[in-house]
Amino acid sequence: MSTVASPRRSFWAWCLESEEPTQQQREDLAAKLSERAGTPIVAAPVPKLEDATLRAPRVRVPDALAPWCATDTWERAFHSHGSHFTDRTRAFSLDFPNAPDVVAHPASEAELEATLDWCGSNGYVVVPYGGGSSVVWGVNPPDASAVVTIALDRLDKVLEIDEVSRAARIQAGVLGPHLEDQLRPSGFTLRHFPQSFRFSSLGGWIATRSGGHYATNQTHIDDFVESVRMLTPRGWWESRRLPGSGAGPSPDRMVIGSEGILGIISEAWMRIQRRPEYRATAGVTFTSWAAAADAVREVVQAKLWPANCRVLDPGEAHRAAGLDGTQALLILGFESDGLSQRHNIAEAVAIARACGGTVDDDEIRVNDGSAAPTGREGAVGAWRDAFIGVGLGVDTSLGLVADTFETAITWDRWPEFDAVVRERVSTVLRQVFGHEPMLSCRFTHAYTDGPAPYYTWSGVGRQGSEISMWEDVKHAASEAVLDAGGTITHHHAVGRMHRPQYDRQRPDLFADALRAAKASVDPSGIMNPGVLIDP
Amino acid sequence: MSTVASPRRSFWAWCLESEEPTQQQREDLAAKLSERAGTPIVAAPVPKLEDATLRAPRVRVPDALAPWCATDTWERAFHSHGSHFTDRTRAFSLDFPNAPDVVAHPASEAELEATLDWCGSNGYVVVPYGGGSSVVWGVNPPDASAVVTIALDRLDKVLEIDEVSRAARIQAGVLGPHLEDQLRPSGFTLRHFPQSFRFSSLGGWIATRSGGHYATNQTHIDDFVESVRMLTPRGWWESRRLPGSGAGPSPDRMVIGSEGILGIISEAWMRIQRRPEYRATAGVTFTSWAAAADAVREVVQAKLWPANCRVLDPGEAHRAAGLDGTQALLILGFESDGLSQRHNIAEAVAIARACGGTVDDDEIRVNDGSAAPTGREGAVGAWRDAFIGVGLGVDTSLGLVADTFETAITWDRWPEFDAVVRERVSTVLRQVFGHEPMLSCRFTHAYTDGPAPYYTWSGVGRQGSEISMWEDVKHAASEAVLDAGGTITHHHAVGRMHRPQYDRQRPDLFADALRAAKASVDPSGIMNPGVLIDP
Repeated sequence: MSTVASPRRSFWAWCLESEEPTQQQREDLAAKLSERAGTPIVAAPVPKLEDATLRAPRVRVPDALAPWCATDTWERAFHSHGSHFTDRTRAFSLDFPNAPDVVAHPASEAELEATLDWCGSNGYVVVPYGGGSSVVWGVNPPDASAVVTIALDRLDKVLEIDEVSRAARIQAGVLGPHLEDQLRPSGFTLRHFPQSFRFSSLGGWIATRSGGHYATNQTHIDDFVESVRMLTPRGWWESRRLPGSGAGPSPDRMVIGSEGILGIISEAWMRIQRRPEYRATAGVTFTSWAAAADAVREVVQAKLWPANCRVLDPGEAHRAAGLDGTQALLILGFESDGLSQRHNIAEAVAIARACGGTVDDDEIRVNDGSAAPTGREGAVGAWRDAFIGVGLGVDTSLGLVADTFETAITWDRWPEFDAVVRERVSTVLRQVFGHEPMLSCRFTHAYTDGPAPYYTWSGVGRQGSEISMWEDVKHAASEAVLDAGGTITHHHAVGRMHRPQYDRQRPDLFADALRAAKASVDPSGIMNPGVLIDP
Repeated sequence: MSTVASPRRSFWAWCLESEEPTQQQREDLAAKLSERAGTPIVAAPVPKLEDATLRAPRVRVPDALAPWCATDTWERAFHSHGSHFTDRTRAFSLDFPNAPDVVAHPASEAELEATLDWCGSNGYVVVPYGGGSSVVWGVNPPDASAVVTIALDRLDKVLEIDEVSRAARIQAGVLGPHLEDQLRPSGFTLRHFPQSFRFSSLGGWIATRSGGHYATNQTHIDDFVESVRMLTPRGWWESRRLPGSGAGPSPDRMVIGSEGILGIISEAWMRIQRRPEYRATAGVTFTSWAAAADAVREVVQAKLWPANCRVLDPGEAHRAAGLDGTQALLILGFESDGLSQRHNIAEAVAIARACGGTVDDDEIRVNDGSAAPTGREGAVGAWRDAFIGVGLGVDTSLGLVADTFETAITWDRWPEFDAVVRERVSTVLRQVFGHEPMLSCRFTHAYTDGPAPYYTWSGVGRQGSEISMWEDVKHAASEAVLDAGGTITHHHAVGRMHRPQYDRQRPDLFADALRAAKASVDPSGIMNPGVLIDP
């Protein structure tokens, strides 16, 4: 196939090749970690992909498909994993046991159809691939006799903008920044900024029920889908473009969250909005984590619908926003394309103060429609910078084991849930790493009936044993979340990683129904097997 | 079975037996209609159900089930239809061709299980019945060899209230008023007021994707479901109670809108809210229907999220709110349990005025937390009274043919859609009734990407031919809606009435998937066959 024009991604770090951490950066970090761990940590050289040994492709690409199908090592290695800690660790070790045999890059629906037809006729397993930001092994090929990864990166156009209805028809393979670039000239934005924004795609967001920018109200990608067009092994599935419909169970809601097991999303009509010009923000500190959570609950139950209503526990507020480690931080933010948010921020701050929060009046920043409101000052700004700069990968294979897990739980169970999860995860962290654990929490989203807590943990472990140490902690964390009543994932998806707990969580009869639905559109069971259900 | 304690419903009118229209009321209306039609219209006597001849029950109820199973004429006749014009017309004629053989009223989940097991073992068709408010033939038994209607009216309790999370566990059979009665002592409300509120049930709302009280933002019953418990022929399907989850396609979203084809909803955890104490309302008039629609669009796209943002076209504003027939009326309303809505109504009114709307400052009513804000004054109040008093049934079988149809369409297509639908429906109304048609429209809900228009029509036709005249108009209206790009139903459901258009609207592969999902939980195809899909 012809070369892709855009700059090449790193095959092991969360960046472009040109931005990869250097050997010097890795050695500097290794020195720091050695000190922290009390044992020598050595920075192995940054790997070269030409040193990898991949199984030879087991299928031959027909000539008709050759123009958009790749079988070279880089393509196959890069597309054999997502962006999780374990993915980066394995890639850094040049460990690609189940690399896809072929990576297809269709540039049109005709090419997409031809590719899927070819796979269907031959029984090849198909793994749809958007931006590769999965942290749940959603794009990692299973151990099958032949696997074709279908990458959507060439289906990356905004095809149509309906300014009156504020909706746009968008191809599924477009990554976040390129999508926004195409909407910006018309003054619009999808305003869906998951942490994976840089390297995740519209189709991936839809397939995994991505959690977006807003902390409250309409924020999930689910809310922004007006209609979806998806190619299944049995043909096209396309819903009517409608602002709302009560005609039977929503066809789109069966596609949203289907994680590639039904078909490949090729495009969608998405609800867009005018770019915000009015903003109001405040960072409120609390001496008590419980009081901060109460403030979130009261703000969201008051239905003020802040765009941002995230709360960081004292550990997280210290690390991400420079607070002193005893205070929780609540970040409140409102925005609008046409209306001052002065009134809303005042109402929210009043609620937060009544819950025991502290914020100086001159720390409430209101921007009434002037250009370029950066909002990067103070604690709020520090938190944003940390959010965007996440996960570059310099620490890969240096003995540092780190991950996050996220869930949702109703408010009545939240304090007990948090206590149980922290206790069980801290215990396993101590056992695995032998030192006091780093475990912190923030809320990424809040609902009238409960928060979506997001936990971050890390430990310095034995070099070379990072993955098995991670496994111990991950298992304990996932089981704790399930046992305490949460969901195994609020917005990271199920993939192959969360299957054991997902299998406990979803109604058994729903799994049967989903399995039957899948069989009806994918009778050979070639679509992303092992994700969500076993075919 | 033992008698039901609550007052008995009319078997033909939308009221209790004790409230039925009298023969005198019917004769008075007949005189008026005679004058309007220019032909004699005779008010037949109000029917007595003992004069009806029903097919004898074709199944024998086992002794174990007898305590909650009825086979008497009233039970079977009453449960053989919903509340549509055609249902009332047929009931008034004592026409009950497919009356269920048995009507079960289980008072516990054990009784529900025993009933469904019995039906499953014998292959009896099961029709779930909530409040009987269906206007799409959703509860009318099909022509089958044996039909058991399972009425949920005895499962009518609020079982648990979680005040912290603002959620309640509620049995599915409870009707609107009784549900609110049970929440009121705690200061809560579900605040879901479909027009059918008085005689519709929680389970029915969930099964049919009921459209609620609010005109914008979270208003559909879909948004208030936290988890659902449903009995299928293969057993229980129950989702985990969660404020949000991204674990696969939502199991609840497959139940919501399933219209009884998968199973019987027995209870649900629902998001509730504090009763509103702060309100602000305004009625804005427009000399142009198009300008009024623009105002709705701009208010909703500004994300002010009014509780009420309904607009009535000049015909509807004249009839329902006493305006002069040249002006459209936009009803704006905000409400909150704890925050003044003075600011929001001012913003919304400013937008409406900029779109050409007129409202005097002293017609903007703000109620800041005092008790009993009735808001029944003026045009807004007149509209509310008309909304609540709808459909008593005095006009049944008097030659008056009347119905509504409702849909949703994106804003870019709305003006053309409205023009096409009015043209096509007016044409058929003229053909069928031979006089200038009554056809009007309002928006019941509004989204950032489009409105949900709700059309009302009527004509005075030939007595005895009401149903066939209705059929001609209904067919034309449904086809016009589909052809012009709308949905066949925004919140009335599909039932058996909308099948021809639903079959055109939904993706074929989705229908296959839904059929497969149904077969997995209802292998004998006994659950409400003919609704949504053919098994």
